[in-house]
Amino acid sequence: MRTPAFHVLKSINSHLSKPQFSTNSLKMKLLYPTSLRITPSLLEAFPSVTLHPYDPRADTIPTDLLDASILVTWVNSPSNLAHAFTSMPNLRWIQSLAAGPNDVLAAGFSPAKIAITTGSGLHDRTVAEHTLGLLLNAARRFYEMRDFQLQGKWPGHLGGPQPDREPGSFRTLRDARVTVWGFGNIAKTLVPNLTALGAVVKGVARSTGVRDGYEVYAEDRLAELLPQTDALVMILPGDASTRHALNKERLALLPKHAWVVNVGRGTSIDEDALVDALEAGTLGGAALDVFEHEPLEERSRLWKAPNAIVSPHAAGGRPQGAEALIVENLTRFLADQQLRNAL
Amino acid sequence: MRTPAFHVLKSINSHLSKPQFSTNSLKMKLLYPTSLRITPSLLEAFPSVTLHPYDPRADTIPTDLLDASILVTWVNSPSNLAHAFTSMPNLRWIQSLAAGPNDVLAAGFSPAKIAITTGSGLHDRTVAEHTLGLLLNAARRFYEMRDFQLQGKWPGHLGGPQPDREPGSFRTLRDARVTVWGFGNIAKTLVPNLTALGAVVKGVARSTGVRDGYEVYAEDRLAELLPQTDALVMILPGDASTRHALNKERLALLPKHAWVVNVGRGTSIDEDALVDALEAGTLGGAALDVFEHEPLEERSRLWKAPNAIVSPHAAGGRPQGAEALIVENLTRFLADQQLRNAL
Repeated sequence: MRTPAFHVLKSINSHLSKPQFSTNSLKMKLLYPTSLRITPSLLEAFPSVTLHPYDPRADTIPTDLLDASILVTWVNSPSNLAHAFTSMPNLRWIQSLAAGPNDVLAAGFSPAKIAITTGSGLHDRTVAEHTLGLLLNAARRFYEMRDFQLQGKWPGHLGGPQPDREPGSFRTLRDARVTVWGFGNIAKTLVPNLTALGAVVKGVARSTGVRDGYEVYAEDRLAELLPQTDALVMILPGDASTRHALNKERLALLPKHAWVVNVGRGTSIDEDALVDALEAGTLGGAALDVFEHEPLEERSRLWKAPNAIVSPHAAGGRPQGAEALIVENLTRFLADQQLRNAL
Repeated sequence: MRTPAFHVLKSINSHLSKPQFSTNSLKMKLLYPTSLRITPSLLEAFPSVTLHPYDPRADTIPTDLLDASILVTWVNSPSNLAHAFTSMPNLRWIQSLAAGPNDVLAAGFSPAKIAITTGSGLHDRTVAEHTLGLLLNAARRFYEMRDFQLQGKWPGHLGGPQPDREPGSFRTLRDARVTVWGFGNIAKTLVPNLTALGAVVKGVARSTGVRDGYEVYAEDRLAELLPQTDALVMILPGDASTRHALNKERLALLPKHAWVVNVGRGTSIDEDALVDALEAGTLGGAALDVFEHEPLEERSRLWKAPNAIVSPHAAGGRPQGAEALIVENLTRFLADQQLRNAL
């Protein structure tokens, strides 16, 4: 058994072997979450920063870490962030790994008092992959095949000889006219995959122009674009300006075979109007990963609407390349430069 | 009402207005099927060939077309092909638009007596797209989401924060090790799409080497490759040599999280061994577009096997670019050259 004397000795030895001990007290603590795999060695290039893992789902931040200057967050519990807000007097910067750090703001933190940066960009590839999957699920009717399978029935009408790229249908991405509304990094990651499969892609965003080789139109051109759309992919953020961006009037502009795929925010679609269109057969289908209320309410008509695909906000949720973003922003933070993805 | 005399007159006029009538009798008739959209103008560059649409699902070939030299087939009825076999004495070449012209051979035609060419290559893009869709359906668990949706339940475990590229899982194509067994044109069309999503692709074929930049291994390396596979894509032809290529022993070499995707021929998998592995949990899942018996038999255990996806032979069935293949082979036929895709 180790005696108290042993600990004293160890402590003295430890101090003796660290000539930089006197500067240690000037070091800043960076807390990184154990809720995803972080490789700390990728963050070790900063002599003035010490790295400390913490459990963001615990109710509190550990006492010995409350003097930290930098907090990296990912799926923290509300009480964990509330404790951080009330009990971390030295905190100067929060790096959220979420695309939108609503939880950080809800805990009371304000970008007016502390640097807050988002994880925008860490979710591009995973959201793009899910979006491509939803588009193929729609075009290739995998959801309908599943319905037949569960009944032990062969969906013969979906197999064997099929019409090829029949006008007024969405059965393949080849030659399909895909309109991507919201043309940020997720869209830019997605669209080369669509082009490779033969889709004809156009973008819609607040400002017009060519981005990454794709023609992007302003929203005032929607009235022309929507009638020429086989699949509308929505990747809009969830602010007040996008609420019900896809409303009854705009839904009516889509051809009746057109599909809507939403991986942005649920609030950007008027769900009632969408279900009305699905039930009336004036819209081909809707593959949705986000909803006005999540989890989707039991009473929602979407569950059983014809050709509706319900995906449980599963497109993202897996930040990729967090270390590179932290390193970049840490470099900027230490140099007192503008941080990337700052609110 | 038109009298018989009118028809005689019309016939005479018709002859008088066709100075090339005498050469007309030397022209060869090419019959093209109305079972898919063919653009005849794309075939019109041959003065010695006349083009005639016919209905391949009718019981017989029309009497006035029985002297044709060239027959293009696509989903012909068995009786239609049987009639062609017994009643078209001048037939010299059959261009099937199917990847495998089993129906033509079944009707009695033999490559020893008549030129028979396949539609190999016309299905690459559509089969590749379906395969990508099945892979994403598997990785993103759309089939499981559907099961929940049909019960009006939110599959929360499939959404929200997820582990990213956890070892021993197949939840994304990014960094997934995909082994493509059967590395012909469909594989070559598919794999760039997988690489673009971040998959690490290896091929397996009868002969080894680098094809289109992808390392392709001979089948004797399967014992090394299968244990390092997250998704096995099978695109094997349906001949005797590939029967039960994926058998119990080889299935046992796959990691228990691995998925099998089959878009080649159903006979290349021992379905009983596959279902055993799925039920035992020693295989992650199977997304199948082809089966040992199609339609899949009612009594098949596959319908309800865990993580089995049943797709009704829907990957192909839409020949694309038929005109270009016909033109190329017609050029070769008229010049007495070796035909492309000849049996």
